[in-house]
Amino acid sequence: MAAEFDPSEHPHRRLNPLTGDYILVSPHRTRRPWQGQTESAQPPSKIQYDPACYLCPGNARAGGKRNPPFTDTLTFENDFAAVLPGPSPAAPPAPHPLLSTEPVEGGCDVIIFHPKHDLTLARLGQEEIVKVIEEWVGIYLRRGRQPGIRYVQIFENKGSIMGCSNPHPHGQVWSLSTIPTLPATELSSLTRYATDPSSPAMDGAPRGPGGKPCLLCDYVHFEVGVAEAEGRVVVKNEHWVALVPWWATWPFEIMLLPYHRHISSIARLAPEEKASFASILGAVTRRYDNLFSCSFAYSMGIHQRPIPPVIDNTADDDENDIAHLHLHFTPPLLRSATVRKFLVGFELMAEAQRDLTPEQAATRLRACSEVHYLDIMEAEEAKQAGSN
Amino acid sequence: MAAEFDPSEHPHRRLNPLTGDYILVSPHRTRRPWQGQTESAQPPSKIQYDPACYLCPGNARAGGKRNPPFTDTLTFENDFAAVLPGPSPAAPPAPHPLLSTEPVEGGCDVIIFHPKHDLTLARLGQEEIVKVIEEWVGIYLRRGRQPGIRYVQIFENKGSIMGCSNPHPHGQVWSLSTIPTLPATELSSLTRYATDPSSPAMDGAPRGPGGKPCLLCDYVHFEVGVAEAEGRVVVKNEHWVALVPWWATWPFEIMLLPYHRHISSIARLAPEEKASFASILGAVTRRYDNLFSCSFAYSMGIHQRPIPPVIDNTADDDENDIAHLHLHFTPPLLRSATVRKFLVGFELMAEAQRDLTPEQAATRLRACSEVHYLDIMEAEEAKQAGSN
Ligand SMILES: [Zn+2]
Ligand SMILES: [Zn+2]
Repeated sequence: MAAEFDPSEHPHRRLNPLTGDYILVSPHRTRRPWQGQTESAQPPSKIQYDPACYLCPGNARAGGKRNPPFTDTLTFENDFAAVLPGPSPAAPPAPHPLLSTEPVEGGCDVIIFHPKHDLTLARLGQEEIVKVIEEWVGIYLRRGRQPGIRYVQIFENKGSIMGCSNPHPHGQVWSLSTIPTLPATELSSLTRYATDPSSPAMDGAPRGPGGKPCLLCDYVHFEVGVAEAEGRVVVKNEHWVALVPWWATWPFEIMLLPYHRHISSIARLAPEEKASFASILGAVTRRYDNLFSCSFAYSMGIHQRPIPPVIDNTADDDENDIAHLHLHFTPPLLRSATVRKFLVGFELMAEAQRDLTPEQAATRLRACSEVHYLDIMEAEEAKQAGSN
Repeated sequence: MAAEFDPSEHPHRRLNPLTGDYILVSPHRTRRPWQGQTESAQPPSKIQYDPACYLCPGNARAGGKRNPPFTDTLTFENDFAAVLPGPSPAAPPAPHPLLSTEPVEGGCDVIIFHPKHDLTLARLGQEEIVKVIEEWVGIYLRRGRQPGIRYVQIFENKGSIMGCSNPHPHGQVWSLSTIPTLPATELSSLTRYATDPSSPAMDGAPRGPGGKPCLLCDYVHFEVGVAEAEGRVVVKNEHWVALVPWWATWPFEIMLLPYHRHISSIARLAPEEKASFASILGAVTRRYDNLFSCSFAYSMGIHQRPIPPVIDNTADDDENDIAHLHLHFTPPLLRSATVRKFLVGFELMAEAQRDLTPEQAATRLRACSEVHYLDIMEAEEAKQAGSN
């Protein structure tokens, strides 16, 4: 028995206060040899236009429609949407209360981030990423004004290891007549924290609507106050911070959120907050690519205010304003471009588990450059060519 | 707008009453073309002994110890356990209540199902599977008697697509000083159902301890009463039923459970219930292998009574007896031996989603033979050889 508890040595569990789920941390196990299968790394795409890509300008999509030429972003309705516009017929009464059916309506959009086939968020400039953010805001407001829509889920799924076969930079937006399970669970946790008089509100932290404490305002206020070398912050700027959350499930999971004020949705971002959002999106994705010198796979999702959206910049006393805008990045890679983490076995049946601690992951990501490795390679190649 | 709601046509969501999570069902989307990546199928192992396998009799393991010769099952402590025996030092006070640490103690066992390298549950005989069940009961009781243990999680992770590189038939058992997230959530749901006077208890269904209604007794009683062609039952015998649950997340997910009486743990199975358990385990795994003519990958887990175990065969009025013994099988394959489902994007960020309905999946699995495809192939080869 060790005399003192060491979170980088002793098995323990941490609670995710947004979901109520625990994560089992086994830091002593980072020394075990790797026996699992390896993935083949997807090489970075090197062509700016692929005639076979259904997302490149001018090309035909699976549904038969053709992309127009475009210079910034392009949004179109998914040809194989998971939900369809209403009205849908009412569901029959359940044969037993344990087997109830709830119809879902909505629509699914695809947003192409840039015309060039070989770029990703990590290789776009800040101005180009601002255009992606403006497009997200536009879809959020447009879909949010459609009758019956309750939630607009913006997300990106990147990398063949995540089942996304097309490297052309793009994301998706699913708009639904229901609030999906995970954002609904998080919203309940935020509501409980805001309304429970015993919530441990932090001195000096921003507050949510009505001056109530906000779980994420408090959490992130704590995190930016921790000494960098001991903490979980990867990078921060004027308005935003990216950190490996205390309760991270995925090895290099990141939560990205504004920390200076309580902001409920992307529709409420001031122009300077959008600029710094674009800047930190670039910084995070470049660090990711540099971690294992590959086009880093991940799923990313934006959690924010359910519909209806509110666009003025003041916090209203609305229950939906309890939402605190944040992004989750869940990348599967574990220790190289070809070794992934599997969420299987004990994790599927019992509880999420990790070996590397969130603090160790943050240290690794802090050590990464914000200059993209391909840019460094290209600069070196140019230098070599010049000296020959 | 269709006049009538058709669950095999219209998008809808279903509630998982064990977890409180919803699943979004998009049945109209089963017609979309496949654009994702394909996996390489792991060929069935053909050698009974592999000198390089750390699970074969007589061979050395990673930790340096050597497996003795064995004829049935063999259990040993995992050389790289995720949890360690206590006592562990107490955790320091949390710097903020949102960052609390809970030490976890316990132990991890590996159970080899059979000495032969090339067998799986699908290719073992009923008597051989009974020995696996007896071994599970033995570990459950032995670990359950250790001080501080609160839960014994038995599971199997099978297939390289699930990150399990060794085909030698084996499973794992993690015993912990905490009840992990998923079984704890399920136990809360079962407790709520048992104690809520408005629970829709089924006439004729078995009851839990104290005559209280049991969510799973009621659910499974309903399912075995549905006409086979419309239902979700895959196979049933005297004591057990395997079905694709109404709320299944994975394409061919199966829940396997006793349906004639409320049984809280494997320690309470009567000999005839163990025999029929072994029989249906074989039937389910053979149908799985036959579905895509491959060694079907899955994670399997047993959910049951938390510790302390109780071994006599009468239902006690103990809160832990509210547990209803059941197994989950979560296989990743979607439409062939090389096309898997990915839980990514919307599913990681918002809500689980499926295209194929549970009813369609059950129909496919009901159509599979219970004679293993390799046995049919071998019989045909023998016939060919005989006729030459
Ligand atoms: Zn969130
Ligand atoms: Zn369960």
